[in-house]
Amino acid sequence: MKHTSVKDLLNNTKTLQEVTAKGWVRTFRNNQFIALNDGSTLQNIQCVVDFENTPETTLKRITTGAAVCVTGTLQESQGKGQNVEIQVSKIEILGDSDAEKYPMQPKKHSLEFLRENAHLRVRTNAFSAIMRVRSTLAFAVHQYFQENGFFYVNTPIITGSDAEGAGEMFRVTALPFDNTPRTEDGKVNFKEDFFGKETNLTVSGQLEAETFAMGLGKVYTFGPTFRAENSNTSRHLAEFWMIEPEVAFNDLDANMDLAEDFIKYVIKYTVDKCGEDLKFLEGRLLEEEKAKPQAERSEMNLLEKLNFVMENNFKRVSYTEAIDILRDSTPNKKKKFNYLINEWGADLQSEHERFLVEKHFKCPVILFDYPAKIKAFYMRLNDNTEPGKETVRAMDILFPGIGEIVGGSQREERLDVLIEKMKAIGIEEEELWWYLDTRRFGTAVHSGFGLGFERLVLFVTGMGNIRDVIPFPRTPMNAEF
Amino acid sequence: MKHTSVKDLLNNTKTLQEVTAKGWVRTFRNNQFIALNDGSTLQNIQCVVDFENTPETTLKRITTGAAVCVTGTLQESQGKGQNVEIQVSKIEILGDSDAEKYPMQPKKHSLEFLRENAHLRVRTNAFSAIMRVRSTLAFAVHQYFQENGFFYVNTPIITGSDAEGAGEMFRVTALPFDNTPRTEDGKVNFKEDFFGKETNLTVSGQLEAETFAMGLGKVYTFGPTFRAENSNTSRHLAEFWMIEPEVAFNDLDANMDLAEDFIKYVIKYTVDKCGEDLKFLEGRLLEEEKAKPQAERSEMNLLEKLNFVMENNFKRVSYTEAIDILRDSTPNKKKKFNYLINEWGADLQSEHERFLVEKHFKCPVILFDYPAKIKAFYMRLNDNTEPGKETVRAMDILFPGIGEIVGGSQREERLDVLIEKMKAIGIEEEELWWYLDTRRFGTAVHSGFGLGFERLVLFVTGMGNIRDVIPFPRTPMNAEF
Repeated sequence: MKHTSVKDLLNNTKTLQEVTAKGWVRTFRNNQFIALNDGSTLQNIQCVVDFENTPETTLKRITTGAAVCVTGTLQESQGKGQNVEIQVSKIEILGDSDAEKYPMQPKKHSLEFLRENAHLRVRTNAFSAIMRVRSTLAFAVHQYFQENGFFYVNTPIITGSDAEGAGEMFRVTALPFDNTPRTEDGKVNFKEDFFGKETNLTVSGQLEAETFAMGLGKVYTFGPTFRAENSNTSRHLAEFWMIEPEVAFNDLDANMDLAEDFIKYVIKYTVDKCGEDLKFLEGRLLEEEKAKPQAERSEMNLLEKLNFVMENNFKRVSYTEAIDILRDSTPNKKKKFNYLINEWGADLQSEHERFLVEKHFKCPVILFDYPAKIKAFYMRLNDNTEPGKETVRAMDILFPGIGEIVGGSQREERLDVLIEKMKAIGIEEEELWWYLDTRRFGTAVHSGFGLGFERLVLFVTGMGNIRDVIPFPRTPMNAEF
Repeated sequence: MKHTSVKDLLNNTKTLQEVTAKGWVRTFRNNQFIALNDGSTLQNIQCVVDFENTPETTLKRITTGAAVCVTGTLQESQGKGQNVEIQVSKIEILGDSDAEKYPMQPKKHSLEFLRENAHLRVRTNAFSAIMRVRSTLAFAVHQYFQENGFFYVNTPIITGSDAEGAGEMFRVTALPFDNTPRTEDGKVNFKEDFFGKETNLTVSGQLEAETFAMGLGKVYTFGPTFRAENSNTSRHLAEFWMIEPEVAFNDLDANMDLAEDFIKYVIKYTVDKCGEDLKFLEGRLLEEEKAKPQAERSEMNLLEKLNFVMENNFKRVSYTEAIDILRDSTPNKKKKFNYLINEWGADLQSEHERFLVEKHFKCPVILFDYPAKIKAFYMRLNDNTEPGKETVRAMDILFPGIGEIVGGSQREERLDVLIEKMKAIGIEEEELWWYLDTRRFGTAVHSGFGLGFERLVLFVTGMGNIRDVIPFPRTPMNAEF
């Protein structure tokens, strides 16, 4: 008999029919009640075993983690918290689970322990909820862009261009470390490597996406990106997924509008679809915060926070205004910041971003028009700025608890200005000939941004460590599984 | 004034309103008619310039490839092939394009030339059509799975496991080639590398996806995979995107049903959405085939072929039946095959697959139950086979013109059998401890498959070379852009 998912069974009101369910035993109480989960939903379905007519040997094998197939009658449940249950007429043990050895015991495990068991943690309520939310958010990303006339573009993962400048890169090679081919002057001969040149893992698909925007108009990427940086923090991964829209004819204001509209859409979509999972994660977070001193607890619970983001305008503040606010702030005056803000031009640290978002504005903030010196070469130089105070049309979106979630800019569309900026930091024209071609032939104002997908998942799930919102995290000294 | 996309303008029946359009000049005829394209659709909008009242200097800058902004009145077109056009009242040149130097001339370019200009080729009709179709197919993939209760899972790109066995891998490293850290016995000390171990680019997310299917039930991946193989063919890339669903409780029959249903859905979705682009690509293909001798031309045009796949059952044939057919076939008897089929157990070559699909069955074919010896260790061993004739529950889907488009299997769910098969090919238990855990704790029948996304795009667009259906192809000696 074909089996039905637990989700469909629980939504089924046609009782008294015979049904089959397959899944894993979460708990087995009183030799009678199986809480069966198959991952389709957070909820388990209760399966009532006729223990008097079931062989003892079978009952003993109904252990936490065992895979079973049950057939029986769907009926209204007498128990609390569920509408229907299965009165089991037949149970088959598909795969045993030795209760002594099974790591996922029906108790609370530490997040560290679960990370070491990333191949099994999706069998817990919290991680199945996180991964369903993650999947829904990912789909919302595609749906938003497709509904709004964007085309999905897969920019290359292996890149021969090292001019992206967004961070340290991993080398990709097929050359051996022993007897490495060398040129006459003793250097590694990358002409003998697979691609005939040095190649790395991409840190951003932006430059390639720009070339596509200048033909297709509105495009977006959604793919893995990499940083070979020794950052062992709760907000950094060596491998993470990034979303990068790029739009011809958009200026920075349109870029900010797009980012804000996009974020609100994907959060709303996910809140609508994943209410149950988010409610569970909200409870988990409340539980976790109980251990914290009152002052460090969130003022809003998870769903309130998501609603707040959806319903309020992001505060748009220029870098110059932000510096004024920070300079005059209490933590700056009382020297509580690790990096004191004394003058215009300072790069903002996480502590400053958090102050602006969490203490000062108490809402998502878009900072824009940053000093040119602290931003990338491809960002549009503002017209009419004071010498020494040049700014670029950059914007960062800062979120409470997360910090920077989006970084974007209007791109420098003027060939001569772009070449000059490249020269200043030592990038050869030949290196990026193809990128410059977009400015040589039919250049136009255009803008885009990058959003780190895991940071979005972090925000929406209320989790505290980025390692817990990606299936198999890659961090320094860790590439298990 | 806010601009409107060309697609929306062409669908607009409210004429006589003032509109603004931005895009790139495809052609400029008679000093009067601009064919303007912005990538939103294959079609251009005709913009009629009042050349008598436009400065000569401006007219001269309306060249192929130039970016322009036009404002004017939308009105019914007198010309053929379009309903509306813009009577231009104001034109602004946003970005010039030197007609002498612009590589994308308004003429037919060779595919090789366009590959060398992959950053500009999306500005041509053919490549913008291909990339819109690719984007639509990708969305259809997500939509199919999400509608059917699957969860999207991002399996790792950098992998510490080299037991996937699907092909040669690229090394990922942060170690230098010069002064590489060495252990006492002179070997490279990978403990000093970024992840503290040897790491490679993934060839498949299957093993990790299996661990997720055993908790979430139905999952799929859609991400980049890599092969460091020196295959310079029209069907191979070093970097390509793969879709890998994995379903708990599915046996091989359900796996075949899923694959067939999935392929039909995504093709139907794309035919419904991209009719105009596919019609154009059909014309391109017809044009191309005119150069071929009659016998080599397709019997069906592109849309007929796509309809044929949607409307007919894929023929399911066991490997053993296929061998019988091939052994008795004319090309085998006449020794036309490069590899003659003499006995059961032979691995099928592309020539045999093409014979089965294109000559014998003349429809998509699913081959199943392959000899264990020529397939991967994780495939489910069939019960009750003759010694020496063991088969596994594998299946490949073969498509006309493409060859293998899907490879899948029911997975070996029995711990002891799996360990034995791993031993036989020298994979240590410790290497895949986490994979084996899925068989140790609550194992169950499960199945999945991999579909090379670019092969699907190849089939749907009717293109002949896989380098032409991915934005920036990576192949041996080529990682430009």
